[in-house]
Amino acid sequence: MGGNPHVLLIDCSDQKGIVHKVTGVLYRWNLNIEEQGEFVDHLSKHFFMRTVIRGGLDASSVLKELKEHVPTDAVLRLEELRTKKIVILASKEAHCLGDLLIRDHYGELNAEILAVLSNHSILEDLARKFNTPFICISHGHKTRAQYDEEVLAILKNYRVDYLILARYMRILSDRFVNVYTNRIINIHHSFLPAFSGAKPYHQAYQRGVKIIGATAHFVTADLDQGPIIAQDVISIGHSKTPEQLMQAGRDVEKTVLAKALRLVFEERVFVHQNRTIIFD
Amino acid sequence: MGGNPHVLLIDCSDQKGIVHKVTGVLYRWNLNIEEQGEFVDHLSKHFFMRTVIRGGLDASSVLKELKEHVPTDAVLRLEELRTKKIVILASKEAHCLGDLLIRDHYGELNAEILAVLSNHSILEDLARKFNTPFICISHGHKTRAQYDEEVLAILKNYRVDYLILARYMRILSDRFVNVYTNRIINIHHSFLPAFSGAKPYHQAYQRGVKIIGATAHFVTADLDQGPIIAQDVISIGHSKTPEQLMQAGRDVEKTVLAKALRLVFEERVFVHQNRTIIFD
Amino acid sequence: MGGNPHVLLIDCSDQKGIVHKVTGVLYRWNLNIEEQGEFVDHLSKHFFMRTVIRGGLDASSVLKELKEHVPTDAVLRLEELRTKKIVILASKEAHCLGDLLIRDHYGELNAEILAVLSNHSILEDLARKFNTPFICISHGHKTRAQYDEEVLAILKNYRVDYLILARYMRILSDRFVNVYTNRIINIHHSFLPAFSGAKPYHQAYQRGVKIIGATAHFVTADLDQGPIIAQDVISIGHSKTPEQLMQAGRDVEKTVLAKALRLVFEERVFVHQNRTIIFD
Amino acid sequence: MGGNPHVLLIDCSDQKGIVHKVTGVLYRWNLNIEEQGEFVDHLSKHFFMRTVIRGGLDASSVLKELKEHVPTDAVLRLEELRTKKIVILASKEAHCLGDLLIRDHYGELNAEILAVLSNHSILEDLARKFNTPFICISHGHKTRAQYDEEVLAILKNYRVDYLILARYMRILSDRFVNVYTNRIINIHHSFLPAFSGAKPYHQAYQRGVKIIGATAHFVTADLDQGPIIAQDVISIGHSKTPEQLMQAGRDVEKTVLAKALRLVFEERVFVHQNRTIIFD
Repeated sequence: MGGNPHVLLIDCSDQKGIVHKVTGVLYRWNLNIEEQGEFVDHLSKHFFMRTVIRGGLDASSVLKELKEHVPTDAVLRLEELRTKKIVILASKEAHCLGDLLIRDHYGELNAEILAVLSNHSILEDLARKFNTPFICISHGHKTRAQYDEEVLAILKNYRVDYLILARYMRILSDRFVNVYTNRIINIHHSFLPAFSGAKPYHQAYQRGVKIIGATAHFVTADLDQGPIIAQDVISIGHSKTPEQLMQAGRDVEKTVLAKALRLVFEERVFVHQNRTIIFD
Repeated sequence: MGGNPHVLLIDCSDQKGIVHKVTGVLYRWNLNIEEQGEFVDHLSKHFFMRTVIRGGLDASSVLKELKEHVPTDAVLRLEELRTKKIVILASKEAHCLGDLLIRDHYGELNAEILAVLSNHSILEDLARKFNTPFICISHGHKTRAQYDEEVLAILKNYRVDYLILARYMRILSDRFVNVYTNRIINIHHSFLPAFSGAKPYHQAYQRGVKIIGATAHFVTADLDQGPIIAQDVISIGHSKTPEQLMQAGRDVEKTVLAKALRLVFEERVFVHQNRTIIFD
Repeated sequence: MGGNPHVLLIDCSDQKGIVHKVTGVLYRWNLNIEEQGEFVDHLSKHFFMRTVIRGGLDASSVLKELKEHVPTDAVLRLEELRTKKIVILASKEAHCLGDLLIRDHYGELNAEILAVLSNHSILEDLARKFNTPFICISHGHKTRAQYDEEVLAILKNYRVDYLILARYMRILSDRFVNVYTNRIINIHHSFLPAFSGAKPYHQAYQRGVKIIGATAHFVTADLDQGPIIAQDVISIGHSKTPEQLMQAGRDVEKTVLAKALRLVFEERVFVHQNRTIIFD
Repeated sequence: MGGNPHVLLIDCSDQKGIVHKVTGVLYRWNLNIEEQGEFVDHLSKHFFMRTVIRGGLDASSVLKELKEHVPTDAVLRLEELRTKKIVILASKEAHCLGDLLIRDHYGELNAEILAVLSNHSILEDLARKFNTPFICISHGHKTRAQYDEEVLAILKNYRVDYLILARYMRILSDRFVNVYTNRIINIHHSFLPAFSGAKPYHQAYQRGVKIIGATAHFVTADLDQGPIIAQDVISIGHSKTPEQLMQAGRDVEKTVLAKALRLVFEERVFVHQNRTIIFD
């Protein structure tokens, strides 16, 4: 029983009466609904419901009773809406990490940064300014598998809710991704049209794109193809050099990452079949 | 009983168990919920709920039973989600009217345009192209009250759901507004900062604004201060002449008006104490 | 000699003194510069200059003198800024065509629509409303080459400045494209990330994209890869059906196409190595 | 003579041949133009020109010669494009200050932060993290005039190019503003429509605005009415609490302030009759 609200998350195949039955349980426990949203996916006929409940409650008892009233394929979670614990993975670029540290400093991050982990030492100075533990693990002479095992071993020391890839420039092994299913959030630039290959900002310059974007997504084994959490763009003109495009890209990246984290940390995001359902 | 879905709209003071009770009625009538959203206003503790129900139903019986389960101050509506009937009021500018006529032509307006009414004849040609009745009522030698009575008398001949002010450059009398409470939708330009007085685009030019916006709102007796339905902006630079600013303004006006109409015609908009609650 | 301003467009390899020499010619001819912009591409060291000149002038004499003062690889154009003549190619969708016809009706298109040409008859009614000649050429039993020859033969009857593909759902043959180099403008949807294959809006729905965009570009032999003129996006959420995504896409498509046409028709766009340089 | 490019800024009443004459001087000094833009204001017939010159030069000699070729009302500047020296004034809110400190940390601010000055001590910890001098001047028992004199006296110790008001919640005295004409940059929230009076975010909530914006501007004696440098907005919905609106506002404020500083520090901004002309 705590002072924070609880959040109830249910997703299951759609069925008549679910909302009635679920809210009936809450009503009998005398719980106050503060926010509620439902959504039925039009194609898969899958039901999603997010309810914010104010007041103390015995979560395991309520949850037990709820399970008796929902379809058998239902996934239920009922948890206190608490500050999340995160580890930030970064490489050399400071803009996303710096934005998160500053937000944390003025109390807007809604998460506790347990540590910053990097394959380079360059960001150590920044993390230290904010008294955040910095772990540098060099990738020299290691295979991807070896490196990821080493990182996983270190992460075991923390009770991590989410890993945040703040411009972490390494591809994660499938094993790594599977350990943290739907718990790794990445940010990367996006272009219209998309560019594959190296130096995307140079390609964007040479192609004369008028818009630069960023996408925050959950990481799956399929590189940069995981469920999208947030996206935004910024307009640019022909006179910008590739370096200026990168600067514009950094601004939109940090904004989009912060938005995605807010949505996830407030338990607003369902993942279903490689897409997100977001109650915002 | 009809093939279209029904939409149930409830707003009332917040109370424990409302969702449970309301969905219980729907469940007992064996109705399928297709979309549902609830919202509790944080300041006024007022509850809003919008439910889309698929399948035939006896609306008056369901409504009667629903009324027994909601707070006494509740406002309930349960209606088939049908095409709205509208009259467009315009003056001399064609961009919003034209956009609505074209959308209607390709089946995207979700409304039936009963007539276009104007205090000028200049738009008659445009309305006629789309076989839309055009009513010109000159305002010469008439007081505002006289003019508005004349228009009201004509409108009585139609079963109007909504009046759309598509750049109708007349201020409506309070009496006119009261006849169509929350059923008149207006579009007007918006600036950051706001400009009062004549020639706002010239003022915007001289002030060097970087953004031009438009606001669609319900019309209340308080000029341009009614509940906001939709807003958007467009970025502009110093090199635009006042005429070019107007052109940019026209583009954003027609987009915002169309968005507002979609929201209203799909019964997604509640009005509460001069603000809107929108389930989109 | 005309009442409209003239526009001078120069692009060449960059060289010291070009602006001085070119403006010197204009000064000696006693011409008034109303607008001027220069740009040097950082990578290719190519120079671009656009000058709007007020007042009557003998274009061929001025042009002849200008050629003596610019690098030998220079491309020069000096023309009266006049209304462009266009033919619109469309298929079945009305939103872009309708928007252009309406803009033309209220005098904002800055072009003369000579005809609408389509491989279907469905848009004939819309074109006729605006007294625009409609040419339907069925593609049945014809190869792409045959079909395109037929269209080219018809287009020869018009003095076309630009062909506008307003959702023309046919791939143009290389020969067709080469006849109208940098004079065909297309609009198509754009996604972050990009989707290949059929039913892109369904793919976008299943992927849960948060942004839908549109790109207007010159058509080159490489499908949808020509120089980009304008782009914009619209934010969308998970609750939109594929059909609603398409509706949102139509809105952004027509806005972006209109913007691109304004830029091109005002002679603000240079094409250089598959990118555009735009003086707006 | 330095390694950085120089920037030449000229504004004067428009006259035939200015560009030719000015570029003639540059050509005779054998200087390379890297970027150039001109603009003639349509209403005031005032001419603006910004030229970036690569290569070493004797600025005072070039400037002297330039003065012989421009109208007598011309204002000329020819300076090395150097890192600007700034003092940041703040109060209690950390988001704008934090964003500037982080950008400075990763080398994107394009300015040297000489000090942070505040009427509160709460931001001292943040400034110290980045080894930035923090000056706290309490406003207790002081008139506005006394306080501002005290601040001015301290600022005299620095060679300040620009003062940045990063959520500095004090109104500046006219005398203060006059000492730093067009050298004080402020950021404040903007709404559509505008709200006067206290607690604007609560007013915005109660009015149900759909867009929240921010405006960066030069400070003039007329409060919040100075020339606008940059603006942007963010879309919001009815479900956001006033606190969440403030959070959204903070995000757009820091982005807009950073954009404005980039434009000013790169010498891209002219101020003319309470508006800005920006070569971006």
